[in-house]
Amino acid sequence: MSADPSPVSTIEPAPLLERHRGTLDKALDAIRTRAYWTPYPEHPKAYADAEEGRAAFEALLGHRFALDQPGTDEWTGGERSPYGIELGVTYPHPDPDVLLPAMRAAMPRWRDAGPEARAMVCLEILARINARTHEFAHAVMHTSGQAFTMAFQAGGPHAQDRGLEAVAYAYVEQVRTPDSAEWIKPQGKRDPINLRKTFTAVPRGIGLVIGCNTFPTWNGYPGLFASLATGNAVLVKPHPRAVLPLALTVGIARDVLSEAGFSPDLVCLAADRPGEGLAKTLALRPEVRIIDYTGSTGFGDWLEANARQAQVFTEKAGVNTVVVDSTDDYRGMLANLAFSLSLYSGQMCTTPQNLLIPRHGITTDQGPRTYDEVVADLAAAVDGLLGDDARANALLGALVNPEVKARLDAAPGIGEVALASRKVSHPDFPGATVRTPVLVKLDGAKPDPEAAYLSECFGPVAFAVTVDSTEDALELLGRTIRDKGAMTVGGYTTSAEVERRLEEVCWEECAQLSLNLTGGVYVNQTAAFSDFHGSGGNPAANAALCDGAFVASRFRMVEVRRPA
Amino acid sequence: MSADPSPVSTIEPAPLLERHRGTLDKALDAIRTRAYWTPYPEHPKAYADAEEGRAAFEALLGHRFALDQPGTDEWTGGERSPYGIELGVTYPHPDPDVLLPAMRAAMPRWRDAGPEARAMVCLEILARINARTHEFAHAVMHTSGQAFTMAFQAGGPHAQDRGLEAVAYAYVEQVRTPDSAEWIKPQGKRDPINLRKTFTAVPRGIGLVIGCNTFPTWNGYPGLFASLATGNAVLVKPHPRAVLPLALTVGIARDVLSEAGFSPDLVCLAADRPGEGLAKTLALRPEVRIIDYTGSTGFGDWLEANARQAQVFTEKAGVNTVVVDSTDDYRGMLANLAFSLSLYSGQMCTTPQNLLIPRHGITTDQGPRTYDEVVADLAAAVDGLLGDDARANALLGALVNPEVKARLDAAPGIGEVALASRKVSHPDFPGATVRTPVLVKLDGAKPDPEAAYLSECFGPVAFAVTVDSTEDALELLGRTIRDKGAMTVGGYTTSAEVERRLEEVCWEECAQLSLNLTGGVYVNQTAAFSDFHGSGGNPAANAALCDGAFVASRFRMVEVRRPA
Repeated sequence: MSADPSPVSTIEPAPLLERHRGTLDKALDAIRTRAYWTPYPEHPKAYADAEEGRAAFEALLGHRFALDQPGTDEWTGGERSPYGIELGVTYPHPDPDVLLPAMRAAMPRWRDAGPEARAMVCLEILARINARTHEFAHAVMHTSGQAFTMAFQAGGPHAQDRGLEAVAYAYVEQVRTPDSAEWIKPQGKRDPINLRKTFTAVPRGIGLVIGCNTFPTWNGYPGLFASLATGNAVLVKPHPRAVLPLALTVGIARDVLSEAGFSPDLVCLAADRPGEGLAKTLALRPEVRIIDYTGSTGFGDWLEANARQAQVFTEKAGVNTVVVDSTDDYRGMLANLAFSLSLYSGQMCTTPQNLLIPRHGITTDQGPRTYDEVVADLAAAVDGLLGDDARANALLGALVNPEVKARLDAAPGIGEVALASRKVSHPDFPGATVRTPVLVKLDGAKPDPEAAYLSECFGPVAFAVTVDSTEDALELLGRTIRDKGAMTVGGYTTSAEVERRLEEVCWEECAQLSLNLTGGVYVNQTAAFSDFHGSGGNPAANAALCDGAFVASRFRMVEVRRPA
Repeated sequence: MSADPSPVSTIEPAPLLERHRGTLDKALDAIRTRAYWTPYPEHPKAYADAEEGRAAFEALLGHRFALDQPGTDEWTGGERSPYGIELGVTYPHPDPDVLLPAMRAAMPRWRDAGPEARAMVCLEILARINARTHEFAHAVMHTSGQAFTMAFQAGGPHAQDRGLEAVAYAYVEQVRTPDSAEWIKPQGKRDPINLRKTFTAVPRGIGLVIGCNTFPTWNGYPGLFASLATGNAVLVKPHPRAVLPLALTVGIARDVLSEAGFSPDLVCLAADRPGEGLAKTLALRPEVRIIDYTGSTGFGDWLEANARQAQVFTEKAGVNTVVVDSTDDYRGMLANLAFSLSLYSGQMCTTPQNLLIPRHGITTDQGPRTYDEVVADLAAAVDGLLGDDARANALLGALVNPEVKARLDAAPGIGEVALASRKVSHPDFPGATVRTPVLVKLDGAKPDPEAAYLSECFGPVAFAVTVDSTEDALELLGRTIRDKGAMTVGGYTTSAEVERRLEEVCWEECAQLSLNLTGGVYVNQTAAFSDFHGSGGNPAANAALCDGAFVASRFRMVEVRRPA
C-alpha cells in the first residue's frame, strides 16, 4: 500500500469494467424495477472461507491494525465484544491537520476518472469485502453483539447490497447529464449560435462517515460508497466500540484504490481516543463537506445545527409502532411479531416498540381476542420462539452497551409485565449478556405526553399499549411519527378501510408501512434495491436509504462552455 | 375561482395529457441531451397580444388584485416602478393561522393525483402564463426596472423555460421509482416469499418561495414549479417592490388548479405590509418545509441557520470574475464584455464584476495591448454600445432601488475611473433612473482582504483589476470564488494551458465557466435545459438551477408492502 499519488497501476481499468459493469447494470435495473435482486448470496454456505475467515479474524486480535495513513500521531483502541472477549486491536489516531490535506490532495485525480471508473473501483472494493464475508461476520459479531448468522448476513451481503445500491444511485445521478453537448441556437436568417459544453461531476470535499455500534457496515456503507462514488474522499470515524469492521473496510478500499492507480488516502480511518469526541472536531472542519451519521438524536441534531458547511445525512432515534386491528392469520401474526421483537434482542432502529391494541380486543381467524388475550398469546409466542437456548442464541444478540441493559432492567417499573426478560447463557461465550425481550402493558388511552411509550426505549423492550379503538390507534400512530419519528410502521387488519386509513397516516406523516406480515419477512428488515430504509421525512431520519436525494447533493455539476 | 376543495372539473385530465405530454417528453429529452430547445418563443413578435397585454397590465393599476384566498386580513401594496410610475395595486395580506392550514388541507388530493397529472397541471399553468407574456413583460418591467425587451424575454419565455425545466426534473425524479413492484425472493426448495409493494411520492409540506426584486419570475418559477410538481402546496412571498408578476402567476395557477379539480389553495400569495418582515415569520412556521430564496447573503444565511424545519434553497450574493489572458478576437471580446457589463445596468447576479488583467498586458490578434489600453478600449466599447440613447435604453435598465444608486455614486471614490457612468434619459419615462456602467481601475496585486473588489458591488459597477500575471489572476479567481462565491466565471485565453488551468480552478472551487465568448452569448445569460445557473457548490448559492438535487428532497417516497 502506498501513499504515492501515482503508483503503478496493477488493476487495469478495462478488466475492472469487464468484471463489474454487468453487476452495475443489474443494480441499475433493480433500483428501477424494485424487484428482488442481489449479487451477494446471503447464506454462509455460499462462501468457502469459513475457517479461513475465523482464522483471519483471530489473527487481528491483540495487534495494531496498520493502514499506512498520513498523519497518524498515536494508536488507540479498546473494543470489548458484547460476547465478552477483549479484541485488543489498536488503530491509527489521526492528526487532522496532516490527514485532511492529504485526503484533499488525492481528490482531483479521482474526480478526473469520471463516474464509471469510480463505480468500477467501488464494485471491486465491495467484491473484495464480499470475498472476506466470514472474517467480517466475526468482526461484526464481536463489536455489535449480533448473533453469528445475523452478523454474517446483515453485516456482510446485506450491507454490501446497501453499498452497491448507493453506488448505483450515485452513478445514475452523475450520468444523467452528458459529458458534453453541442448547443445550436437558431438565429433566423443569421448563422446559428453554436456552443460546445462540457459537464463535469465535481466532488464536494471530504465525506465524514460517523459509524454506529450496532450496524457498523450496514449503516456505514451507504454513505461511504455514495460519497466515494461521487468523487469525494471519505473519512470513516467508527463508533469506539465497533471499529474493526470499518477498519477492515478502509484497509480493503485503500488496497483497491492503490492498485487501481489512485491515492489510497481517498479512504481513511479516524479512530478516536476514549472520551475524545473526535467526531465533533472533524464534523466542523471546513474540508468536511458531507456527513453521514447514525446514532442518537442528540448528536444528530447537534450535527444538523452546527456542521453547517456540510450536507448532513442523519439517522436518529424513533418510536416504531404496530397497529393491531384484526387479522385472518392470528398464529402467523403472533409468530411474525415475536420474531421481530426478538431479533438481535430488539437492538435495531427498525424494531417495533409500541403495539397498539384496542382495549375491546380484535377479530381474528380464531375468533375474537381480548387485549389481554392478544398480549398473553404474544408473550407465549415469544416464549415458544426462544424456549430453546441454542435457538434463542441464534436469534437474539448480546446487549451492546450498559445503557441498553439499564433500560431493560428499568422496564418492569414502567407497567405491568406481560412477559419478563430472561437471561440466556451462551455455550461459547459465558461472558455474554444475552437477553430475551420484555413486554410491558401500558394504557395509551390517557393522553400523557410524558408517557414512557412516547420515547424511544432502544433495546429488548416492547410496550403493549391499549387504545380505545383502532381510530385512536391511528391518531396515536400519527402523533407518534410526527413528534418522535419512526423508521418502521406495521399494521395488521382485515378491513380495507383500516388499511386505507393506515396508508393515509403513513403518507401524511411520511413513514414506511408493512401490512399484515405473517411469513418470513419482518417489519424490521428491508431489502436493498427494493425497500427504502427510513423515509427522510419524519424526525427519525433526514435521509432514506437509498434514493436520489441521498446522492444528488454529494457532488455538483460544473459546466464549461465555449464557442464551437 | 373557488375555494371549494371539490369543484366541478372543467379541465379533463385526458385533454391536459394530450395537450402537454409531448412538451414534457421534449423537456425530458432536452435535460438529458442539453441541446438547444424551448417551447416558448423568445421574440415578442411571436406573440399576438402586444396591445391586449399592455391594456391588461394597465387595467390592473390602481386596483385590488383579488385572489379569493382564505385568511385575508387586509390589503397591502406600494409598488413604484423604477421607471417612475406608481402601480397602486394592493394585494391580500394573509393571516398565516388561517391560510396555512387551508393550504395544508389541499395537499392530499394533489398528492393522490400522482406525478404525471401534477406535471400536466403545471404545464397548463405555464401555457397560460406564456399566452399572457406581453402582460407579464409590462409587470416585470415596472417592478424590476428591466427594459421592455429584456423584461419580455427574461421575465417571460426564459422564466417559463426555467419553470418547465423544474417540472421535468421533478417528474423524472418521482417516476424513477415505479408505482408498484412484485418482490419475489427465492427460498431454495421452499415457496418463494412474495411481496407486493407500492411507492407513493409524498410532499414535504408547504413550499415558501421568497421572491426577489430583479427577476421575480425567472428566479421564482424554478422553486415554485419544483415544489408544486412534487406534490407540495406553494406560498409565494414576493419582494415588496416586485409583487405584480408573481401575483399574476398565483392567479393563473389558482384558476388552472381549480378548473382541473384541485383546490386553488395549493398556490397562494403572501404580500407583506411595509417593514413587516413576513418572510421571517413564514420561514419559521412548522407547516413550511421547503424554502426557495433569492436575495442578500445576510437573509439567505439567516434562513439556512434558522429555518431548520425546511429544506432551504438559496441564491445569494457572489463576486463574478473574468480572467483576461489573451484573445484571438480582441474586438469580439470587447464587444461581448461591454454588452455583459451594460445589460440591465449590471443588476444581474451573473454580471461580471472583476476583470482581472495582467499589469504587463495581454496578447491579441491586433498585437499586444497593455493593461491601460485594454481598459481604455473596453471603456470605448461600452461608450460605443451605449452612445445612442434609444439603444442604451433598450439594453440598460432603471436602477431598482436607492442602494444600487448609492453604490454607483460611491464607485468613483474607490479608484481611478476609466469610464464614468452616464445618466440616460428615457423618452417615455422621464422619472426613470437609467445609468450606464462605471469602470474603475484597481490594483489587485496588493493582497488586501478588505479590497472593494472582494465584495459584491451589485449594480452597474465593474472593476478592472491589475494582476501581476495570469498565474496571479488564477490564484485570485480561486480565492474569490472560495471566499465570496460566484454565479459566473469568464475567461479569455488562446493558451491551452491557461484554459486547462481555468477549468481546474472552476472544478476545484465549483463555479460555472464561460470561455472566449465573443459572439451573441454572454457570460451573464444561461439557457434552461442546457446551462446550469449557479453550481450550488460555492458561497453564492447552495443550489443550481436545475439539477436532481434541486428537486430530489422536495418529496419523499413512502412504501407500503404487503404479502402478495
